Amino acid sequence: MNPQQRLAEMGLSLPPAPPPVASYVPYLQIGEMVYISGQLPMREGTLAFTGKVGGDLSLEQGAECARAAVLNALAQVAAAVGGLEHIRRIVRLGVFVNSAPGFTDQAKVANGASDLLAAVFGEAGKHVRAAVGVNELPLNAPVEVEMIAQVAS
Amino acid sequence: MNPQQRLAEMGLSLPPAPPPVASYVPYLQIGEMVYISGQLPMREGTLAFTGKVGGDLSLEQGAECARAAVLNALAQVAAAVGGLEHIRRIVRLGVFVNSAPGFTDQAKVANGASDLLAAVFGEAGKHVRAAVGVNELPLNAPVEVEMIAQVAS
Amino acid sequence: MNPQQRLAEMGLSLPPAPPPVASYVPYLQIGEMVYISGQLPMREGTLAFTGKVGGDLSLEQGAECARAAVLNALAQVAAAVGGLEHIRRIVRLGVFVNSAPGFTDQAKVANGASDLLAAVFGEAGKHVRAAVGVNELPLNAPVEVEMIAQVAS
Repeated sequence: MNPQQRLAEMGLSLPPAPPPVASYVPYLQIGEMVYISGQLPMREGTLAFTGKVGGDLSLEQGAECARAAVLNALAQVAAAVGGLEHIRRIVRLGVFVNSAPGFTDQAKVANGASDLLAAVFGEAGKHVRAAVGVNELPLNAPVEVEMIAQVAS
Repeated sequence: MNPQQRLAEMGLSLPPAPPPVASYVPYLQIGEMVYISGQLPMREGTLAFTGKVGGDLSLEQGAECARAAVLNALAQVAAAVGGLEHIRRIVRLGVFVNSAPGFTDQAKVANGASDLLAAVFGEAGKHVRAAVGVNELPLNAPVEVEMIAQVAS
Repeated sequence: MNPQQRLAEMGLSLPPAPPPVASYVPYLQIGEMVYISGQLPMREGTLAFTGKVGGDLSLEQGAECARAAVLNALAQVAAAVGGLEHIRRIVRLGVFVNSAPGFTDQAKVANGASDLLAAVFGEAGKHVRAAVGVNELPLNAPVEVEMIAQVAS
């Protein structure tokens, strides 16, 4: 199965690549590395959720936001290189979790993104990452995910 | 016009590259990539503003801080490679906004940096970025900006 | 002296590389660059400290946490490439400091990591970095440190 088929098997599909919400580009390829701007859990042009994980939102909803954000990041890589099948390796995720005071399960929130990548790409989906809490995110998004991917040259 | 001339046309000039405030280096070149340490909105050795955007400072003052910080980042690249004209592409910005509770316009603050880069470098200034809120920054700076740039080899 | 000997001279030794606390990999090499996931100040499987720097913990304890976390990052690089002697350059640190309200000495906390690298590797240990405050970290860790290192090819 290719990555799209694995997504379909999970009941998911690649969304249209969201346009940037400000004056920058969503993706940039330098050699075989594709850099992706921070993605929010947008679905069809609006945030799937807003607010703080561990307060307004449960851990499970936070993980769902991480999954939605990383799907958008994959959509950006696909837009950059013409499809997910050109991805050789997911290299790095930066996961910022809009965290209510006392919420310390940022790693489990980020797993929403990491587990999806492992399911879709297998070994090639296993990446390094930094997952941290923050007190505020753009548009009151619960999660922001940035990505670096290595693609076929 | 070259980048310095475009800066001048905007009434701006490249500041002296600020020394690091701690035990690290301000820039490091690996191949054709130049990595820049997180820059604060320093002007002539002191912070242009301190405090939290959306509380102590307005959105407009926050954007001005992002502009001041990215000017310092450009000064570091220029110090690294001998001038702005050797920049091929601004690759990535990380923008951390010291955010008052409830402030969610981090993207607009970061535009202070992104718009400047687009104005100075045109297409070569368009970068990926992650803009997030944080609860505290070094020296109570309102904004910290880190950068990766690709330079002529 | 080699890096291990310099560590020993400082009364330190490389810990076993901590396993990831979630579904990702601790290190990933792409060409001559080794990317390290965010490391916490783990010692023998538990956090050396928990809580917020500038509140629960002093600046000095925060710097000690940064040192413990960067030792774990070095252990990951060593695991990736077979020893610290293969490191050509420490390229970048991302240092996230779990910060009590009003704490603005993130740079001094991060120096716990940066000073160690300079002591162990000399010029090759001098890196760029971004040091920021955050309101929460995974497992209530006081510090999280991510790293990029260049290794011999």
